[in-house]
Amino acid sequence: MLHPVVLSGGSGTRLWPLSRQNQPKQFLTLIGERSLYQETVLRASRLPGVQAPITVCSQLHRFMVGEQLQAVAMGNGGIVLEPVARNTAPAIALAAMQALRSDPDATLLVMPADHLIEDEAAFRDAVGRALSLAEQAWLVAFGITPDYAETGYGYIRQGDALGADGYRIDRFVEKPDLETAQEYLDAGGYAWNSGMFLFSAQGYLDELARHAPAIVGAVERAWGKASSDLDFIRIDETAFAASPSDSIDYAVMEKTDRAAVVPVSCGWSDIGSWSSLWSVAEHDADGNRQEGDVISVDTTGSLVKASERRLIATIGVEDLIIIDTPDATLVARKDRVQDVKLVVDRLKAAGRSEHLFHRKVYRPWGSYDSIGVGERFQVKRIVVKPGAALSLQKHRHRAEHWVVVSGTAEVTCGERVFDLNENESTFIPLGSVHRLRNRGTEPVELIEVQSGSYLGEDDIVRLEDVYGRS
Amino acid sequence: MLHPVVLSGGSGTRLWPLSRQNQPKQFLTLIGERSLYQETVLRASRLPGVQAPITVCSQLHRFMVGEQLQAVAMGNGGIVLEPVARNTAPAIALAAMQALRSDPDATLLVMPADHLIEDEAAFRDAVGRALSLAEQAWLVAFGITPDYAETGYGYIRQGDALGADGYRIDRFVEKPDLETAQEYLDAGGYAWNSGMFLFSAQGYLDELARHAPAIVGAVERAWGKASSDLDFIRIDETAFAASPSDSIDYAVMEKTDRAAVVPVSCGWSDIGSWSSLWSVAEHDADGNRQEGDVISVDTTGSLVKASERRLIATIGVEDLIIIDTPDATLVARKDRVQDVKLVVDRLKAAGRSEHLFHRKVYRPWGSYDSIGVGERFQVKRIVVKPGAALSLQKHRHRAEHWVVVSGTAEVTCGERVFDLNENESTFIPLGSVHRLRNRGTEPVELIEVQSGSYLGEDDIVRLEDVYGRS
Repeated sequence: MLHPVVLSGGSGTRLWPLSRQNQPKQFLTLIGERSLYQETVLRASRLPGVQAPITVCSQLHRFMVGEQLQAVAMGNGGIVLEPVARNTAPAIALAAMQALRSDPDATLLVMPADHLIEDEAAFRDAVGRALSLAEQAWLVAFGITPDYAETGYGYIRQGDALGADGYRIDRFVEKPDLETAQEYLDAGGYAWNSGMFLFSAQGYLDELARHAPAIVGAVERAWGKASSDLDFIRIDETAFAASPSDSIDYAVMEKTDRAAVVPVSCGWSDIGSWSSLWSVAEHDADGNRQEGDVISVDTTGSLVKASERRLIATIGVEDLIIIDTPDATLVARKDRVQDVKLVVDRLKAAGRSEHLFHRKVYRPWGSYDSIGVGERFQVKRIVVKPGAALSLQKHRHRAEHWVVVSGTAEVTCGERVFDLNENESTFIPLGSVHRLRNRGTEPVELIEVQSGSYLGEDDIVRLEDVYGRS
Repeated sequence: MLHPVVLSGGSGTRLWPLSRQNQPKQFLTLIGERSLYQETVLRASRLPGVQAPITVCSQLHRFMVGEQLQAVAMGNGGIVLEPVARNTAPAIALAAMQALRSDPDATLLVMPADHLIEDEAAFRDAVGRALSLAEQAWLVAFGITPDYAETGYGYIRQGDALGADGYRIDRFVEKPDLETAQEYLDAGGYAWNSGMFLFSAQGYLDELARHAPAIVGAVERAWGKASSDLDFIRIDETAFAASPSDSIDYAVMEKTDRAAVVPVSCGWSDIGSWSSLWSVAEHDADGNRQEGDVISVDTTGSLVKASERRLIATIGVEDLIIIDTPDATLVARKDRVQDVKLVVDRLKAAGRSEHLFHRKVYRPWGSYDSIGVGERFQVKRIVVKPGAALSLQKHRHRAEHWVVVSGTAEVTCGERVFDLNENESTFIPLGSVHRLRNRGTEPVELIEVQSGSYLGEDDIVRLEDVYGRS
């Protein structure tokens, strides 16, 4: 049976400031109404005879994966948490082991979580061809038929035809310079390496064992100590960290003699930069894409995105990328957006946090947003999901005032447990053991005013936590 | 005696989004540590034998004028409030009447509140020459010796020399096109019309009576019904509104045969646009001026201003003006900033408020900033100055929670009056008569959470107000 495997990797830097380390590109709603991750699992779910998707993600993103799956009412074939990043070869090995638990004949359709595919029918057709090759024990890479000389992708050179379904892979080639990319385009027989694959789970592990035995060894040891934690599959960190870090391309596809490519032209994009998002998004007649509250005068060829409660006005500019978020705004020339990584590097070097988190932070129980900060106080807007609860906790350096502005919260403070309704408030003295819970069916929203000498997130002693964080 | 007259006019659009209707350019700290208005009164105060300044301003700005004067510890020769704007000829007539109350021989030095003068010695020298001409009953305009072919100013053509001090005015000429401006520059004998003047108060009124009797008549009637209100001089609105709206140039200077010009080169700028601010501000080696939290990669010739708690990152851009405020950000090509008025026009047409107010609003008692808004709530950060008090008031549609985060507030709520210390909170039920007062010597800062079905600023019934607003 066919098991979609969604690889949720990536460091979240190329679409900064919208993407952050704890909320990378695949979880953002960039085009349409769902995230790229959601679109990826939904696209896979519409394939014939397909199983629930297996997701391999960083443990940093586990709650986001769980919620986004739930939000599109998707079944869950397992959310495997990588304790550390070890590139795609070990990640796919984990997914193979998960699929084989229930299905010894499992076939894997491996898809990065952050790609866009506009022509789903063409994609589905390519999956059909890849399946027929996989039945003949080929390890299939999906190759995107190039329509211009792109220098940002690796290429796959086709070899002999394998019937009408695809080709042997002659060789993989690194990202070319422009001249070479043009030669590939003119010559034909080259495809972009999309990072999507289809093969037998056992066949992949066998080839991995042959060409990269250290990876299989480490992943097997890590998997042997796997444990379930809520919806998540945790694997052993020490064992997994011992695996070499390598891509499936280097570790398997370039080495096996069973490598095939299925060419496809399906409106694919990896949305690897703001300029590539601009390219795939719809524009107005002036070549602009505007999201949110934007006023433009004589502006052309630009992507302008305003954040909530903020207006962006542009005058006389062209080919700009303007991305506004509550704590950071990027203004870049469209052909220079790859240098956003230089900005992220500077943030890292300065020990800052704008590349790690948004001002609004998602938690398994809901979210908080730091809307005001002063000398000895901080104001947070907190949303608690129906049925959710914050940990039972206390703080050493701060007291808190809570004002409920929507819904009914159940508050624990010391020995007391009581309901706090809309337009009611309470005080949590410094050092008091407390908890906030939403037993209702609507979100609880409250304003928290923290007061104290130290207001860092790390001033928290968790005594009990339903999400396994204590 | 010499009475400085500071004209605080202007609609606050050209430096949007930093300037707003209720906080125009003259009250902003654009260069250095004080506002242009404060620099103007301080510059005047350093002239020999000068009296306290008379300010003519919109009643909208009266508290700001009062505070900014107080902040630089300046005496006050009168703050005359214009109930409606009627251009400079009536405004200067008001100032003349105010000066004549205490000094029948008053000489006025008229200065717009929003100009920059870098060479104060040259300015002082020009005032000395103007004084000697005024003693001979000349009405003197200060003309700025042009150093390039500017098309944004009116010009004054010099006539016959009046000794070593200045010249008769041959004629005023409108803003020229570039070719004409270049001819003026090449020919010599032309000066920019700075909007600064010096003359006898009575002499001005006499000439105004001769050439624009309707203005003098209306202003005299309005002045006849003047009343003092705190530090302010209020005049009769109906009478003043009946005055023709005209500039001193048209109403007097172009018509009188006693018009003289004193040329001066004093590093003058009217900072009429963001590009002109960029020109007069210090730049780094790449021609950039950066204020606040800015990270720039390959950026040249740009003015980038980040607002509090926000980061602006720029990549590969040149000659941009980027002005960030809590609710609106402008990104404009430097040579197109005059079109900021088109943005303001669109805001007006849409009935919006981003051209009228900042998110943080100044009040006579302090300030408030709307830091969070939701379905049926709003969160404000409120600062009350030492000794200040909000009005005794009530609201028909909202209740309020107050959490003091700094200082000690005296709270009136219904019949109770009590102190609220740092880290204490209280609740003001819907409809309760309440007041907030700071009897201490440090500012009181508090977080207000409003809850209700309607949260507009106009839901306020003022029962008592120390600032005359009830």
